[in-house]
This record gives sequence, structure tokens and C-alpha cells, in this order.
Amino acid sequence: MSAFRTIWTNSEKLVVVIDQRKLPHEWVEVTLNTYKDAEIAIKNMVVRGAPLIGATAAYGIYLALKEKEEKQLDDSFLEEAFIALRQSRPTAVNLFWALDRMKAILQSKGRTSEIAWEEAGKIVEEDVETCRMIGVHGLPIIEEISTRKGGEVVNILTHCNAGMLGCIEWGTITSPIYQAVQKGLKVHVWVDETRPRNQGANLTAYELTRHNVPHTLIVDNAGGHLMQHGMVDMVIVGTDRTTRNGDVANKIGTYLKALAAKDNNIPFYVALPSTTLDMSIRDGLKEIPIEERDQNEVKYVFGKTSKGEMENVLICPETTQASNYGFDVTPARLVSGIITERGICEASEKGILELFPEYT
Amino acid sequence: MSAFRTIWTNSEKLVVVIDQRKLPHEWVEVTLNTYKDAEIAIKNMVVRGAPLIGATAAYGIYLALKEKEEKQLDDSFLEEAFIALRQSRPTAVNLFWALDRMKAILQSKGRTSEIAWEEAGKIVEEDVETCRMIGVHGLPIIEEISTRKGGEVVNILTHCNAGMLGCIEWGTITSPIYQAVQKGLKVHVWVDETRPRNQGANLTAYELTRHNVPHTLIVDNAGGHLMQHGMVDMVIVGTDRTTRNGDVANKIGTYLKALAAKDNNIPFYVALPSTTLDMSIRDGLKEIPIEERDQNEVKYVFGKTSKGEMENVLICPETTQASNYGFDVTPARLVSGIITERGICEASEKGILELFPEYT
Repeated sequence: MSAFRTIWTNSEKLVVVIDQRKLPHEWVEVTLNTYKDAEIAIKNMVVRGAPLIGATAAYGIYLALKEKEEKQLDDSFLEEAFIALRQSRPTAVNLFWALDRMKAILQSKGRTSEIAWEEAGKIVEEDVETCRMIGVHGLPIIEEISTRKGGEVVNILTHCNAGMLGCIEWGTITSPIYQAVQKGLKVHVWVDETRPRNQGANLTAYELTRHNVPHTLIVDNAGGHLMQHGMVDMVIVGTDRTTRNGDVANKIGTYLKALAAKDNNIPFYVALPSTTLDMSIRDGLKEIPIEERDQNEVKYVFGKTSKGEMENVLICPETTQASNYGFDVTPARLVSGIITERGICEASEKGILELFPEYT
Repeated sequence: MSAFRTIWTNSEKLVVVIDQRKLPHEWVEVTLNTYKDAEIAIKNMVVRGAPLIGATAAYGIYLALKEKEEKQLDDSFLEEAFIALRQSRPTAVNLFWALDRMKAILQSKGRTSEIAWEEAGKIVEEDVETCRMIGVHGLPIIEEISTRKGGEVVNILTHCNAGMLGCIEWGTITSPIYQAVQKGLKVHVWVDETRPRNQGANLTAYELTRHNVPHTLIVDNAGGHLMQHGMVDMVIVGTDRTTRNGDVANKIGTYLKALAAKDNNIPFYVALPSTTLDMSIRDGLKEIPIEERDQNEVKYVFGKTSKGEMENVLICPETTQASNYGFDVTPARLVSGIITERGICEASEKGILELFPEYT
């Protein structure tokens, strides 16, 4: 029910994505012709968001097999594709999950582009359904707050973009929001701009605009003040990787919002497809490697000039060095609950295993 | 001992300030010819920082008297100047303090530009000495950490610019840092960029560069992660207004850093000249009015383009609305201590009154 999808295939059986670095100012479609195109799209954040990265990587394997068949290359070419795609982003567990799934299906059913095409398509459709179900389970939280407030506006704060632009349709954190709006509930979203890449300002604000959801852009510094003054009813964020213990790796700055929510008794939810759970690790702070990105993402801000041109502007002295950690880890103790496609659970091993006993 | 001052008088007995909105890219001196120039300089943040705002307002009264004498205007002109300057920024208590002091001296010694000139000059020199003493008292905190770490680098995180650019010389939070560096201690500063106006990236990074202090620019989202990983030894921030109870109003986002410091057992200090204490109020959250500024400060980011031009770039959809609260309040319970020109005290009425018994 989203206004558009984030990845699709064209009549030539090639894969098309939106260059999300150009949003919200320009809509540019990028055709992925080879697995290297997919690798670069992931690495350079043409696509971003755990589920979309997974889907792009899955189609990357399809593109590798297509090229292998067309050029009659040997198996090492496919292996190279798996390795390159696996290394395209270090934190996103969905990436590894999607590649493992592709590897398994190719091993059991045969290494053909046809098999890969079908499996990547399944990954996409399953994600749409997963996101829809996250909304079905998250909606009652918004409904309850709405009822408690006598139908007044429910104010929801979010960080980064865990919307449909990071998925295929619906999104994770936006799915309950879109479903609440469709049901006629009054909702308003505080959108953290999410420096350094401004995914909130660029992407969340964009997709909320496209879906007519009332929202207000704020700097990342503002959330604490809004919470202190009763202007936030709930916080909901996505995650790139959540551990067995319920520790949540998400865009840098999430931890600060979780601390403020705790300090002001505001519920702090994490919406995730279960593919984002990494049951192989427990202590998120110690075990999740945090990606360090180019310092120029901090030193420069990208946007549209008064002449309508896209430009990077320098915001500090030329000689100043910057540091650019991409993610932080919010300890489970600060998380009110995890909203998954199967329901809501406590951010703990016990809670996760109640919903997903197969992970025991 | 700073490399320059932020406000001075010229041979025509006019007042000169630096247009801090153009830093770090351009050094532009602005001559204030009238009190209206001073009012506009404060309102438009050509000058910013509590002590510098106070000094500018004091010289604004001098400029009003100068104009009054030259044009033989009546007393209502001076009254207009007091009112206009008082309304130029709503949160800065130093502004009110400086204007009250000017009013008192004019009442007791006579309403002449000569008296105002002398008093404004005294305010400036007193601030220089106050800031120097904040450094004298704050330095032992850095020395103690340095000793504990066996002389290794002391990592200090700061938010916004409470440096010399917000004062006349030395600065508040930078005074202990500059004195530590002069003493040969190894210090490194994490500089929060401080959206929306980027005073950290623009100003703190600039003055640390000018004074050869090692520093790294970070996004406002990063501090929590750095603290979780032992990369911050202390936090030190300034304040625009601190209450009798020790609640601290400072640039929006300060509260989030205080929460993270508390959660990671990292000392969180506030450096202030005692003129920033507002002993007339207690509960900072309830009693300090928080300035709401133009939404375009959030929607646009100012910086230097690749062609060397200064430009505002839009970072969100044109139609998106933004909210722009300028400050937040950090409750006293999160503050490890207040560093003043008389020494360090607890962030409480008891602590403040021990250092400043005259406020009882």
C-alpha cells in the first residue's frame, strides 16, 4: 500500500533501484546490470536500510549468475560475487542472511540465474509481508496512546530512516504509522535529521510527505527537550542488528534518544524483521563491529543550493579532522519492546525466544 | 593570552566585532556605529555567547548615548535603546545583567557617553579576568585525569562554542583547556558540530585550530558511542543561564550528552562566569523560557561550496516544516560540578551559595 517500491525488475530482467542519495530533491532510477553494480550500490549507499540491502544483494547474486551464463564464466566468478557482496557493508546482518539464503538455494536447486531470480523475488515479497505484519502488531501501541489521549494527536519520534525506503514497501517503523493513518488516527512524527548523512531529513521526511503523514523535522539535538516537555508519546526506531540479549545496533545517536526516553518515562520501541536478529552474539557493545566511514561525510553537508544545484558545503575549517562512526548500540535495558512480524516481545533472550522458539 | 579578542574599539571610538556567522571560512570585521547595529548584531547572531552578548549590549548603550549627544536627542532615545537591546535575545541572562549594570552606573554617575564607555570597557576587562580564573580553577580537573592516565591524552568532549569566541578572551570551557595545553599536558577535544547552527564545527573547531589544540569534529549523535567505549574522559560545556538549584540551560542537545555522561560514569562539568547564574529562579525546566528560532536554520545548512562561495543548502523536502528550539535544560542531578571564577562547586543551591554567599 506504499506509494511506490524501492527495488523492482524491468522488462530486460535487470534490477532497478532509486538512488536514495539524491532524495528528496531528485528521483533518479539506477539500473543494476551486474553484481558489481549491486555491490557499488550497497557500498556507496545508493540503497540503504537492512532489508533493501539484503534484497539488492540477493539480486546481485542473480546478476552474477546471469553474467556467468552469458559469458560462460566458471564457478569462481560466482564465488567472487558472494565475497564482494558480503564485504560491501560490515554491519548489516540482513546482507549476510540474504547471501546465505541465496547460497543455500543454489546449492540445493542448482546454480542458475533462473533459480536466483525466483529466490530474490521471494525475498522481496516476503519482506513486503513481514513489514505489513510489523505494522499490524505495532498499530495497537499507537491506538492505545490515541485512546488514552482521547483521540488527540499521537506524537512519535524517530531517528534515521527505517521507513519503506529502507525496505521494499511499508517499512518497519513506518508500517504501524502508515496503518494508523489509514485507520484515521491522528499521528504526528518528529523526524530526527540524523547527521551525518541526514537520512531523516532526506528520506523519512520525503516518504512521510509522499504518504501525507504530518511530520516536523528536528535536529538530532532536539529530542531530549521535546521529551522533557511532554511533546513525545513514543519513540520508534529501526535496527541494523539486534543481539540475542536484545541489544540494538542502529544509526549513531539512537542510544542518546533511548537514554532520554528512559529519563522521561517514554516508551522506546524497536521495529525489526526477525532477519535482523543476530542470535549468534549477546553483548552488543562488545561484539558488534561499528563501521567507521569517510570523515568528509561529517565535514561536508549535502543539499540543494538556491540555484537548484546539488552541492556539498564545508562546515568546518579545511584542516579540521573528523571522526565518523556509523552506528551505536542501545543496551536492551533501555528498550521497551521489540516489534516483529510475529508480535511484540521484551528486548531479552527470553522475550525473543518466546516469539521465535526455533532460535533456541 | 588568546590569539585575538572578539570585541574592541577603534580610533573613532566605535565598536568592532567579528561576524561570527562567517567563521571559519571568512574573517569579517563589523563596525557597530549605533545601538541598532549592536541590537541587530545580537539578534542575528553576528555575536553570540553570553559574555560577548553582554559586552556588546553594554557598548550598545554607549553607542546610544553617543548618538543621543551628537543629535541632541531626549532621554526617551536612551530608554528605547535599553528596551531594544533587552529584547534582542530572550534566554541570555548576561544580556540583562550587563544592561542593568549600565543602567545603574548611568543613574549614579550621570548619563554620558563617557561614563558608558568606561563601564563597558570595565565589563570587557572583568570578563577577561573571569575567564582566566575559570581556567585556573578548571585546570586541576584536567591535571588529575592526566595524572591518573599516566600522562596519556585527556579526551574532553564539548558541545556548542563556549570558547573565547563567545567571550572576549580565554573563553569559559576553553580556558582550562588552553591553560592545560600551555602547561604541556596532552589534551584532545571532541567537538560536537552542534546543529542547527554548527557553532562547534564553525567556531570551536576554528578557535582550537588557531590555538593549536588537537581536536576532532564529530556529529552531535556520536558522543554517546564514544562515551560507551571509554573514548571520553570528561565533558565540559558552557551555559546561557544556570538556576539557583543548578539546572543548566545551554545549547539544545546538551541534556542528551549529560545523560550519556551519567550513564557511563563520566564527569560532566559546566563552566560559567557567575554573571550567568540566575538566582531568581529554581526549576530550570519550568522557569526558563526556551527560544524558538527560524525553521530555516534547520532546513538549510550553511557552508562553503567547492567553488569557495558561501551557500545555504536545503536538506529536506521544500514543503517539510521544521521546529527549532534553541536550548534545553540539563537538570542539576546530571551535573558533576560548576566551574566558576571563584572555584568549583556542586550544582545545587548549597554549592552555589558556598562560593557566592552574597547571593543568599
